[in-house]
Parts: sequence; C-alpha cells; structure tokens
Amino acid sequence: MTKLQETYKNLTDYVKEITYLESASALLDWDQQTHLPKSGSDYRSAQLAYFAGEIHRRRTSAELLDWMNEIIHSPEFDQAPQEIKTNVSVLKREHEKSSKVPDDLVQALAHAAAQGHQHWLDARDKNSFDLLAPPLEHLFKLKREQSEAIGYTDSPYDVHIDDYEPGCTTRFIKEQLGVIKKDLVEITAAASNASAQPNSAVLKANVEATEQQALSLAITQAIGFDYNRGRLDESAHPFSTGLGPDDVRITTRYNQQSFKESLFGTLHEAGHAMYEQGLRADQYGLPSGNYCSLGIHESQSRLWENLVGRSRGFWHHFYDLTKSHTASAFDNVPLDTFYNAINSVQPSLIRVEADEVTYNLHIIIRFELEVDMIEGNLSIADLPDAWNQKYKDYLGITPDSYNTGVMQDIHWSAGLVGYFPTYTLGNIYASQLFNKANDELGDLNKMFEQGEFHSLKNWLNTNVHQLGRRYDAVELIETVTGEVASSKPLISYLRGKVNEIYEL
Amino acid sequence: MTKLQETYKNLTDYVKEITYLESASALLDWDQQTHLPKSGSDYRSAQLAYFAGEIHRRRTSAELLDWMNEIIHSPEFDQAPQEIKTNVSVLKREHEKSSKVPDDLVQALAHAAAQGHQHWLDARDKNSFDLLAPPLEHLFKLKREQSEAIGYTDSPYDVHIDDYEPGCTTRFIKEQLGVIKKDLVEITAAASNASAQPNSAVLKANVEATEQQALSLAITQAIGFDYNRGRLDESAHPFSTGLGPDDVRITTRYNQQSFKESLFGTLHEAGHAMYEQGLRADQYGLPSGNYCSLGIHESQSRLWENLVGRSRGFWHHFYDLTKSHTASAFDNVPLDTFYNAINSVQPSLIRVEADEVTYNLHIIIRFELEVDMIEGNLSIADLPDAWNQKYKDYLGITPDSYNTGVMQDIHWSAGLVGYFPTYTLGNIYASQLFNKANDELGDLNKMFEQGEFHSLKNWLNTNVHQLGRRYDAVELIETVTGEVASSKPLISYLRGKVNEIYEL
Repeated sequence: MTKLQETYKNLTDYVKEITYLESASALLDWDQQTHLPKSGSDYRSAQLAYFAGEIHRRRTSAELLDWMNEIIHSPEFDQAPQEIKTNVSVLKREHEKSSKVPDDLVQALAHAAAQGHQHWLDARDKNSFDLLAPPLEHLFKLKREQSEAIGYTDSPYDVHIDDYEPGCTTRFIKEQLGVIKKDLVEITAAASNASAQPNSAVLKANVEATEQQALSLAITQAIGFDYNRGRLDESAHPFSTGLGPDDVRITTRYNQQSFKESLFGTLHEAGHAMYEQGLRADQYGLPSGNYCSLGIHESQSRLWENLVGRSRGFWHHFYDLTKSHTASAFDNVPLDTFYNAINSVQPSLIRVEADEVTYNLHIIIRFELEVDMIEGNLSIADLPDAWNQKYKDYLGITPDSYNTGVMQDIHWSAGLVGYFPTYTLGNIYASQLFNKANDELGDLNKMFEQGEFHSLKNWLNTNVHQLGRRYDAVELIETVTGEVASSKPLISYLRGKVNEIYEL
Repeated sequence: MTKLQETYKNLTDYVKEITYLESASALLDWDQQTHLPKSGSDYRSAQLAYFAGEIHRRRTSAELLDWMNEIIHSPEFDQAPQEIKTNVSVLKREHEKSSKVPDDLVQALAHAAAQGHQHWLDARDKNSFDLLAPPLEHLFKLKREQSEAIGYTDSPYDVHIDDYEPGCTTRFIKEQLGVIKKDLVEITAAASNASAQPNSAVLKANVEATEQQALSLAITQAIGFDYNRGRLDESAHPFSTGLGPDDVRITTRYNQQSFKESLFGTLHEAGHAMYEQGLRADQYGLPSGNYCSLGIHESQSRLWENLVGRSRGFWHHFYDLTKSHTASAFDNVPLDTFYNAINSVQPSLIRVEADEVTYNLHIIIRFELEVDMIEGNLSIADLPDAWNQKYKDYLGITPDSYNTGVMQDIHWSAGLVGYFPTYTLGNIYASQLFNKANDELGDLNKMFEQGEFHSLKNWLNTNVHQLGRRYDAVELIETVTGEVASSKPLISYLRGKVNEIYEL
C-alpha cells in the first residue's frame, strides 16, 4: 500500500462512519414522517439535532482536512484514479463550506427543521398562518445567519442554492427562470383560449387506497424500481430517501377522489429512487457514489413522472392495468380522451397537482419569494399577501385558504430554502437528457408502447447515475448531451404537447 | 452550582448523547424487523455493529469514569438525592463490566447478532439446521469469549445472566427452576389425566388479520397502553422496544387460524411497553429512568398476558368485544367454555403458544441447554438431539421439524443468551406483585369485570416502574411485597387454576 492509498483508506473509513450516522439520521427522519407516534416528536427533534451536530463535527474535523491535504499534495495524486480525485476534491469543497458554519447554528437549524414538520402539521390542521409564522420567522433568521457565516458576493441566497445545486448561483437561476416565465404564461394562455379543450372531468373517480397502492406498486416495479432494495409507504408529504446502498424508500399519499395524485406522485418519487438505486454501491457515501445535484435528481423524477409517465406510449401500455385497478371508472373512456385529460393545462392552486406547464410558474413564485425573504426584502408577516399577489399575476387565480396557498408545501417549515428552483432546473435538464436518450436509443415512445422501460433506465444508469459527483450539474449536461444547459428543449416539448392536445 | 452538580451535569449530558445513539440503534433494529427491504440487511448489520462499537466506546470512556469517581468521592455524595446515587452507582458497575470487553468483540457480537436475524429467517425458510449451525457456532464462540473477557467464579454463564438480570447468578436460577420443575410436571400430568377436559376446539376460528388488529388495538388501549406514545406493527417475531421517552412500540404477528396467538402476544408486549411508558421521562436513558431487570420486565408482560389476560374478570368484560371482531365464531360459545379453553394445559411444541403451566418447562429446557453450551458441555451439532430429548423427558412430545423445535425462537440467533430464564423469573415475580396489588387495591378480578384496569396500571407505575434501577430485582420484590423472591405464589396460582378448570 502506498502512502496515498493508506491515507485514502483512513479517509474513506472515516467517511463510511459518517455515512452510518447520516443514514441512521435519514431513517429517523423517514420514521418521523411515516410512523412516529404523536408525542414522540419532541425527543425525535432533539435527537435529529444531535445527529446533525455530530455529523457536522466530523465532516468539518481537522483530521479529515489533514488527510485530504496530504492526498491532494501527494505527487501520486495526478495519476490517481478519477474516483479518488472526485471524492477528495468534492469532500474538500464541502469541508471548507461546512467549516464556516458554527456547531450551534448547525444544531439550531436541524432542531428547527425537525420541529418544523410538527409545526406545519399543526398549522395546517387549523389552517392558521399565525401558528406557522413564528417558527418560519425563526428558521429564516437562522438561514440568514447561515448566509452570513458562509459569506457570499452577490446574494445571501447563493449560499442556499449552492447547498442543493453545487456551483449554481442566484443569477444563473434568475436568468433561466426569467427566460421561460414569458413562454409559460403564453403557453398557458394559448391552452386556456383554445377551442378544443380536454375533458378533465373523466379523471374524477372514486378509487380505494388499496387499489391505488396496487397500481402504483405494479407500475413502478415495471419501469425498474427494485422492491428488493426499496419500499413504498404513506406520508403526509411524499418523499424519497436513501437509507443504505440497498435500501431506498419512497412514500406517497392516497386521495380517494383523485387517483392520479398518488400515481404521478409515486412515479415522481420512483424517479428519484431509481437514481439512488443506480448510484455506485462500492462508493456509497462518497461523492463518486452520490447524486450530482438536486437539479439532476429532479431531472430524474420529472423525467419519469412527465416525459415517460404522461407520454402516449406509456399509457398505451398501462391503460388496461390502470382500468383494472380503478373501479371501472375508465371502462368507457377512450385512451385518447384519458391521455388528453392527464395532459390538460389549467392554472390551479396546488403545486404538486399542477400540470407540466403551470408547474414551473408555481416554482417561479416560490423562488422569487424565498429570494426576497433571504435578501431581507419580504417579511414573514407579508408573505401570505405576496404569495396571493403573485398567484394572481402569473396564474390569474387566488388561494381560498392558507392550506391551498402559502402553507401547502412543507419545504420552508423543514428548512428547505433554495430547494424549489431545483424542480424547474430538473425539468430543463430532464428534457435535454430525454432528447439525448431518444437520439441514442431510438424511438422511446415506441418502446414504452411495448412496455420496454429498461433501456431508458439503463441509459440513465450509465450516463447519469454512475457518474456520481464527477461533474457539477451544468458540466454533466454538457458532457452527456453535448449541449449547454438550456430551457429551449423544455419549452419546445411543452409547446408541442399543448399544440397537440389543444389542436393548435 | 456546586462542584458535584457541575460534574453530574457533564455526566448526564454525556449519557444523554449515548442515549440518542442507543435509541437510534433501537430504531434501526425495529425497522430491520418490520420494514427493511430484503437486500438492505447487509448494510444494516454493518451499521448496527458500528453503533454498538460507538456506544460501547462511550459507555467505557475514561472521562465517564473520571466523572463518576469524582462524584462518588465527593463529600456531598452521601447527602445527594437518591436518583443521583442510583445513576452513578449503576453506571459505574456497568462501566466496570463493559470495560472488560474489547471493542472488536463488542462489534463482532453486534454484527453477528444483526446478521443472525437474516440467517434465522433463511434457515426457517428452508427448515434447515445446517444453515443455522455455522452462525450459531460463531455466536456461541463469541459469547464464550465474552465470558472469559469479563471473568466469573462459578460459571461462564453468570456473565450472560447478569447482562439481563443484574446481580443474578446461574446458581440462583438453577435453584428457582429446580424447585418448580417437579411441580410443573406434576400439575401438567394432573391436567392431562383429569376426567373433565376443556374444549380447546372452540378456539379454532378463521379471523382476518385486520379484525385481529382492531381487537388488539382496542384491548391494549383499554388496559392502558398509550397510543399517542406508541404503535403496534407486524413482525416475524413479536417484540417491544423503546425509541424515546414518548415512543414505545410493540409488534405482533397474525395467524388467521389462531386469533389467540396475536391477542395474547400483543397483551404480552403491551405489558412490556406499559412498563417502558411508566418509566420516569425526566430520567430517560439514566438508570433511575430505566427498567430494573429483564425478569422484572417479563413480570410486567406475563402479568398482563396471564394474570390479567387469562382471568375470568378480564373475559367477562371483553368477551362481547372479542365476539364482534371474530367473525361470529364464538356466538354460541358460553363464556365459561371459552374461559376454560384459553386456560387449558396441554404439552405442546411452540413456546410462545404454550399455556401458563407448560410455558415454564419450555424455559427450563432452553436454560439447561444454553448453560450446557456456554459451559462447553454441549456442541451446536448435538443441540437438536439434546433439544428433542428434553422435550420428550419433560413434556412427553417430540418436534416434527427444526422449525417447530430447536429453530422456533430467534433468541440464540440474535445473540440473546441468558435471556430465556428471565421469562420464568418474570412469572415468579408477576405472581408476587399481583398478590400484593390485590391485597392493597382490593379484588382485582372484580375490577377487571367492570373494565377497570387503570388502578392496577397506576399501582405498577408507582411501585415498580417509577423506581427504575434503584434496586436489583430481588431487592425490588422484597421492598414492594415484603417477601423474599419465591416461586410459591406462582405454583399456588397455577395449581389453583388447574384445579378449577379441570375440576380437581
């Protein structure tokens, strides 16, 4: 064993132990959202805060830094395998950033985020923004402290977007979202004003949760989610989480009146989870075995939810199965009518139920609001009004309650600030990746028609998942597709679909 | 703050952190038994081993020892509150014992125990003792190494019984079990030879798992298990576990052909869990907020399962509810017939399905075998034959497969050696405690008839649960009942019931 190999082994053994703590912490969180008894939440919050502190202490430890410096300055480093270079350089970048945040702020953030889950549930229970405002105020205060601790040039929001999208800036996102905002409003208006309108009413069906679950299990298994290495459970807010190299879990919620919520929600989470299941197991917990960015993560979820899950080929294949699990509700609905209905474009209040076009307007609203809050230009007290105003301006509609408005998402309560724009980045990247896969593999839609989803999954395994964090998101897109990151394929896809459905 | 208070705060803060790790480890274990995807078990085993090592390292740390010595030698210690004395002296005793076990042995034991769960499932799946023998061999080898590391005077088994029953010895258990063995065989024979026999066939009923679950939930809630601070789930082997001061969980399994298995199993686990829910929350993780011993723990589970759950008053109260959840199976069965049936005494192969009398013979068999294995007088290869021979000698029956014989329990595979005798100690203590409660509270059976269970629960809260580890088990029984530990009340109770049911 060379000196570099020896030091590298120390480093990876150390990170392996941190990963044990992180995946235990992920289980504590999964359990909190799926099983924790009501009164258990105080202790769990304190426990999660302890884990966050313990993990942070180790991630920012001096010995980790020493090992990394020793490896980077070793004469052998230039010739080291790519995975070692990736692991050490990414860990070093994270070490530098994390080291700037004091331990007590890390624990305070973790504690507030864990408690936020219960606060959000309680506030929603009473539809009361008054209940949510003080914890939100506290969380955004801590988030601003985090910005100051880490430091920034342009915007304190840069620090937070960088947490989820390493290397990305507020300016980049403003540019990307600025470009598409006009297009999205225009496409939405074109759909609204078209004379041919899909019949969305056909989707109204009363479907038992057990049947919805059976359908979700069958479809996600067919597209490639491995249930020997994962599970599907229920939670108030759907999510996916990795608890080990062979344990990736997704959750959903069942609305008896709207089976498509759980189905598309589950497809979305399965897309996330198939990314995690496709990561390199031998590099588990290390950057080479980790996901690239949340934007790329979302590209996987949105790709399976929309580009696959709302395609004609997909429904050609799965319509009969769906009929058999939906209480005969679609027996007399032709496939074309169903396909148009699940692709209809209509301004609506709830992000997670939004269509592919207006979804991005929901994101733009949240992004603009959270930037304003972090930059100190919007107070929590003024948030509900600002929310409603933007919904009126961009979507032409106004929430009838906090629950269908500013309190619909758990993100801010859970301390996820800087997270929302990654959904639209995901849509942008998804279109680029899908087009490339379609070029390389042939007609994907025809494959879906025949129930063939594994070619696409395998292509993503090879071209995206197995690369880990070798590149940042923008570099990954360029490397894989040969094109710079661009929203043109997304807009062209959305416009094409709306033109088709609305006969424009 | 005095110097003692300051040091004591350091100590309790430190233990609080260990407790966060321990309760996370308990969740990892709960999840492994209830939810973990099949392929996730390797990583989970390694992770549990890491946690065991990390916890052991802290429990045996030099700083912990320094603080304890400082407190004990402080002039203020004599006047310190009882809870401080209990906490420090018990922690010190544990520190001394744990410190003798090397880190790598602790991790090897934890790893083998965690993997044992999957080995046991796999071996059971194929009814193959060949599959189980190598991991069992490995586990008992590690257990013997543990005996040697810690040291003992009389028997290497002393070390293991002391893990679950602090202060207890192999000799004490041999005496207690030796006394009752003859009585139990005699009572079993009297029942078998009686002319009046209960009609056990009436218990055969086909009851859906959902109905069994509804019944178990209703009954456990009625007797005092708090579902705001706990849950009921399914697992292959029923267990209870504490994951926080307000999060105590129980599991059961549903056999559609035998509703009584899950019902009495759930009552048993609820008894355990009500003990944990009754511990002092302000002392969570410290000896004053911990359970006394497994024998006392089992006294609580067996008390609720048998002395309450198989009593006439209990069934007088719950029979109608039970009828409403058991598919009309008992509509034409008089209460007396039902009561006799659930109290019938009959040698059988499966411990967890055994009646109150023969149950203790199952335990005696396991105790004798594990003592022989730890003392090196019985090899794993000879275990199945030795098992079958003892079943023939004590119960007059022979298992027809490994699954109904030597492989029925998970304990040995999970590294639980020294655990079995605590079940019978529990039965002994339960009878003593129940008699005392009955003396102090009045006719308990009459209370049960009226659905009044909280007096008993509150009495146990005050007289047992809230005392934590202030006393060891034998001292606790003496303090609470005024009598030395004795199997006489148990034998007298069993004989009385058999005489009643069998009209002797």
